[in-house]
Amino acid sequence: MIDKGNKMPLYLQLMRLLMEKVEKGLYIEHEQLPSERELCEIYEVSRITVRQALQELERVGIIYKLHGKGTFVAPKKYDQQLDALYSFTEEMKKLGKQPTTKILSFETLPVDDYIRLKMGLSIESEVYKVVRLRLADEEPLMYETTYLPSTLFPNLTKERFEEQSMYDLFQREYEKAVTNATEKFTATLLKEEEATYLEAVSGQAAMSIKRFAYHQNELIEYTMSIARGDKFAYTVELT
Amino acid sequence: MIDKGNKMPLYLQLMRLLMEKVEKGLYIEHEQLPSERELCEIYEVSRITVRQALQELERVGIIYKLHGKGTFVAPKKYDQQLDALYSFTEEMKKLGKQPTTKILSFETLPVDDYIRLKMGLSIESEVYKVVRLRLADEEPLMYETTYLPSTLFPNLTKERFEEQSMYDLFQREYEKAVTNATEKFTATLLKEEEATYLEAVSGQAAMSIKRFAYHQNELIEYTMSIARGDKFAYTVELT
Repeated sequence: MIDKGNKMPLYLQLMRLLMEKVEKGLYIEHEQLPSERELCEIYEVSRITVRQALQELERVGIIYKLHGKGTFVAPKKYDQQLDALYSFTEEMKKLGKQPTTKILSFETLPVDDYIRLKMGLSIESEVYKVVRLRLADEEPLMYETTYLPSTLFPNLTKERFEEQSMYDLFQREYEKAVTNATEKFTATLLKEEEATYLEAVSGQAAMSIKRFAYHQNELIEYTMSIARGDKFAYTVELT
Repeated sequence: MIDKGNKMPLYLQLMRLLMEKVEKGLYIEHEQLPSERELCEIYEVSRITVRQALQELERVGIIYKLHGKGTFVAPKKYDQQLDALYSFTEEMKKLGKQPTTKILSFETLPVDDYIRLKMGLSIESEVYKVVRLRLADEEPLMYETTYLPSTLFPNLTKERFEEQSMYDLFQREYEKAVTNATEKFTATLLKEEEATYLEAVSGQAAMSIKRFAYHQNELIEYTMSIARGDKFAYTVELT
């Protein structure tokens, strides 16, 4: 409990007690914490002390506040190491999660200017545009829009996409294993449609990841992924 | 102009025309585009065509919409390569920008649990907590909170911090050059206070970057940076 004779500030003591409860699983992900008034009573401290402790816990990402609703325990994030080429399917399997993919749309289109410039395609190129929702243990985590030059992947169909992971498809049916990739990360807000698919709220924080994937030196894939901001962290080592 | 005899869909043609204007600088960063109705008149196309073109341009990040205000040209982002240790000061100099730093606060504190666990410090440790605003050509870009163990940097003061970049200070005055670092990226929303300092709007997208910096194998710095989401992209190569 809080020790008022201890030289450690009261809000740090309260912060420690609440952190311990989260770490021990006494409070679980998205569980609501007692109100400020209740915390004052439980720990016999002032409102100022409670507010300062909650503010610090929010700052470090252990809790989050919803306006007018209260304070909740923040979920743990998937921590993706950016030390080597990775795939959603393989990463989720490593974590003991069951990865699944829903193909939301599959189209063959004349290339638009943005994609044409990004992918270095000629003006009369066609691309497959595939929109996919990626799930782990049935929880939707990423919303992905992929462009593939149709000349590199002849006769691709939605059905063939549904049977296997995209990178398995590239490798097994076209002998185009992805050998390296460039990824560009930006912070963004979930749009209405993305939020609906991701079972989240529009305006919530999201990570936008643009991947250019290569087979040897040939660009074979351009993907724009939207990952829930509360679900993913990306870690890089710099030397 | 739009060629209705061309087999390229009208919205792709309009998208191309608008992209060209942005690329040529006829529309500049944050400039408002004509309204949907005006675009219909200028290019003699339907409202549906205009909407589809704008939607695609927004999707790829060339424009952004403000609810009830209209459509604007998105700013270009600083693209930080995550291929080696970098510092804000050095990166901005490389781009011909004048980096400056405002020290918002400088305190010596008993360590809280979160920082203690993160930094592997003992329970009675003290840390310096330094909050800094980083600017380039006087534009505020990052809001940073840094923790340094006081035992590693004796007699540090706000004044010494103001005289030089932090990494110069580490190296010159303490012989503790940063040799490597781990950075963890998450997408978040700007909080009120951060938004005020960054001259942005609270609730806007932001990148949160937690840096653990080492001198050889010794952890000497823990920094939480908040970077404006509309100003920064981070690129990594994966093999």
